[in-house]
Amino acid sequence: MGKNNKMVQSITSRDQDFAQWYTDLCLKAELMDYSDVKGFIIYRPLGYALWENMQAYLDQAFKKTGHENVYMPLVIPESLFQKEKEHVEGFAPETAMITTTGIEDLTERLIIRPTSETLFCTHYQKIINSYRDLPKLYNQWCSVVRWEKTTRPFLRGKEFLWQEGHTAHATEAEARKETLDILEIYRTLGDELLAIPFVTGRKTEREKFAGAVETYSIEALMHDGQALQSGTTHYFGSEFARAFDIMYSDVNNERTYVHQTSWGVSTRLIGAVIMVHGDNEGLVLPPYLAPKQIVIVPIRSEEEGVRAATEYVKQALLDQGFRVFVDDSNKSPGWKFAEHEMKGVPIRIEIGPRDLETDEVILFKRHDRSKTRMKTGDVATSMKDILETIHQDMLHKAQAHVKAHTYQATDYETFKTYIKAGGYVAMSISGDDAEVQIKADTGATARIIPFDQTLLSDICPVTGQKAQQTVLFARAY
Amino acid sequence: MGKNNKMVQSITSRDQDFAQWYTDLCLKAELMDYSDVKGFIIYRPLGYALWENMQAYLDQAFKKTGHENVYMPLVIPESLFQKEKEHVEGFAPETAMITTTGIEDLTERLIIRPTSETLFCTHYQKIINSYRDLPKLYNQWCSVVRWEKTTRPFLRGKEFLWQEGHTAHATEAEARKETLDILEIYRTLGDELLAIPFVTGRKTEREKFAGAVETYSIEALMHDGQALQSGTTHYFGSEFARAFDIMYSDVNNERTYVHQTSWGVSTRLIGAVIMVHGDNEGLVLPPYLAPKQIVIVPIRSEEEGVRAATEYVKQALLDQGFRVFVDDSNKSPGWKFAEHEMKGVPIRIEIGPRDLETDEVILFKRHDRSKTRMKTGDVATSMKDILETIHQDMLHKAQAHVKAHTYQATDYETFKTYIKAGGYVAMSISGDDAEVQIKADTGATARIIPFDQTLLSDICPVTGQKAQQTVLFARAY
Repeated sequence: MGKNNKMVQSITSRDQDFAQWYTDLCLKAELMDYSDVKGFIIYRPLGYALWENMQAYLDQAFKKTGHENVYMPLVIPESLFQKEKEHVEGFAPETAMITTTGIEDLTERLIIRPTSETLFCTHYQKIINSYRDLPKLYNQWCSVVRWEKTTRPFLRGKEFLWQEGHTAHATEAEARKETLDILEIYRTLGDELLAIPFVTGRKTEREKFAGAVETYSIEALMHDGQALQSGTTHYFGSEFARAFDIMYSDVNNERTYVHQTSWGVSTRLIGAVIMVHGDNEGLVLPPYLAPKQIVIVPIRSEEEGVRAATEYVKQALLDQGFRVFVDDSNKSPGWKFAEHEMKGVPIRIEIGPRDLETDEVILFKRHDRSKTRMKTGDVATSMKDILETIHQDMLHKAQAHVKAHTYQATDYETFKTYIKAGGYVAMSISGDDAEVQIKADTGATARIIPFDQTLLSDICPVTGQKAQQTVLFARAY
Repeated sequence: MGKNNKMVQSITSRDQDFAQWYTDLCLKAELMDYSDVKGFIIYRPLGYALWENMQAYLDQAFKKTGHENVYMPLVIPESLFQKEKEHVEGFAPETAMITTTGIEDLTERLIIRPTSETLFCTHYQKIINSYRDLPKLYNQWCSVVRWEKTTRPFLRGKEFLWQEGHTAHATEAEARKETLDILEIYRTLGDELLAIPFVTGRKTEREKFAGAVETYSIEALMHDGQALQSGTTHYFGSEFARAFDIMYSDVNNERTYVHQTSWGVSTRLIGAVIMVHGDNEGLVLPPYLAPKQIVIVPIRSEEEGVRAATEYVKQALLDQGFRVFVDDSNKSPGWKFAEHEMKGVPIRIEIGPRDLETDEVILFKRHDRSKTRMKTGDVATSMKDILETIHQDMLHKAQAHVKAHTYQATDYETFKTYIKAGGYVAMSISGDDAEVQIKADTGATARIIPFDQTLLSDICPVTGQKAQQTVLFARAY
């Protein structure tokens, strides 16, 4: 068990240094590796497979609701990028630019897309003419580049993978509905695939997207009590439409500006999965997200009975459609146990000669590290229920964590105490000034304005002014 | 039918001007649009959906054979890119470089990946240590940038979408087998999905990939008799391994260089589908590739019987798993017919009151533009066979085209005549000098060295030297 211990010990304890634990886990679970350019990471097979499974879920949900995939160019001419004022101000400092090629310098600098609003708008201006052309419900899977100063694997990088939806509608009501419908798809992704209970709401003026009229967000609470903005949807009104002249002829043949939205989630969700579910043994994957759901570890596989039972169980699980594999490498069982725990495989089945005497195998559940014995013949037939139970356990645990770390404050000292302890704190505030003060004092930022609004106090505890709305605060990644 | 005719007329005739026909079709079938940066195209929903279907087929085939997807950075430091000499010489002129950001100039120029050999090699150097770590069978789906001077939609662009496989093996034999196994997957993609009979073989020294020991290729013959290189696989030997120091400890604990391959197909395949199958009415899609396989056009949908029959047929086809949709827009039937022909939908079902009197519908097949009557109740049950027949028809037609335009030449004048007429011409040549001369004289290039080798003549008709091998030539895109 020497090697095994060495492997496990090489992860920093989660409670001792959460940031270091996170980085250790990303590397040790082989989710990613660093490249030669700071802020650009390599998505290793396990990390990329998590993204593929999220993609598959979302892509199906988008298509089912009438969305179509397209692919826009990687580059945006600088002049085009500058067309919408607020938008360019928000993104300009982070832009990376192509200025030269192997043959010649470019006459105009080309921005690597940090987001593609300007490209979609230019295209929409060309292809939208009549109300019959609406709505346009486009989505794109791609990578974007933002020249961030401080970077962390999956959470903030100079390049990340994402989807960006861009839609154009005839009416404000339809566009507003779109932002909320997509927000609900994102929330459901959390419930059904990631086992993460997202809190949803609207962003404050200060926190909304550059160029948006309104931004909505899904927020997740990490194990350390910090929040992670995990996806956003934006209602743009007709601001971009005016800047890019996107008009349609309505049924009365009158020229009218379209109403637009955009929305996206990124590989940041991988970071959320790690920090919501992971533990000191490594990654813990919810079973429907896990690329490999079940690993079978034969103990003394040279014995005929072990080999036969391994083959039987594997085949029975494959027949039921589960993602199962056998680790018959020449490593020690202890090493294998540690490795697959590190990589978060939800179920480990140990098949050894002693248990087979009573026709049994050992079933180990990664999320609670519990071991049970089970008749060999029951493994495949029970697996559907076992995985569903694990998923529910993980979701409920995460929900309980959110509940235990969600507070309300009606005075500023209490607010500071809660923020320091970690978690969401709801407080009724007067506006922008209060947010600025809170950030300066505590590092916390407004995460969302919850949809259900009740004022907790008439007066804002920060500014002493009249409270306008209740806002959920947290320190955030 | 006025509008309808206008739409159809706006495509140039295929025989009159093949190049213009191609461009017209790309735009009119709404496969793509131009962006504001020359050489960067927009993949519209239909164009992107074709790529998605090719991706789905290949991704499954790759995974089934043990390959894993990863994602490498978009950028390569210039110094890293220059590590393998032949490779950098091949790509340097086409590189686009990031030199500055919104905040500051970069200290080292970053190349937008034109291909990712150097990134994979750097990663492999880090993660390969023992024979137990081999093989590494990685693939990546991404876009790449090559600063081409002349560009055409799908065929040659400054940016294109592709997959690039990069593998590392313990032995030469295993790596060589990989290049041929993947070539076979590509060939099968042609047979089973694209209805394109690819000709396969090895590239000549002159035509092989920059840095490769050997390159294999799938070639397709377009309707105009020009060839299109549609995918390549490369055996690298240990050239990159030496440049990047990728070694492993073998079973005897001796340090040994790995053997590597890379391979890729791109959105160029969309161009192949257009130019192999398309006609004067527009795109013709093979049925398994078609995002929409069947369009139902109700004639006088205000009539109750038509509405009911439309719903019945649609539901019956959906239940069988076909990709069917109803066009109940307020355009005229003629307009709809032309539009869906332009977009290559394999089957159109016309449901009108007159045919319903005898419980029949009209079934139109796009590939041969034939119309048949069919009992309403038979549509769904016959559809599987109908689509398979269409696929086979299209494949056989394309095979016949290749056969009719494949020639052998034992003298140079005959060779020139065949090349001028269009098609593949096999000739036994002495080597590089002959290729150079042939290109200068005829514009034709060596497409492949066929696997089955028989010398057609002892003397090379071009140089008069001893013939070394038989090579298939064609003018090519």
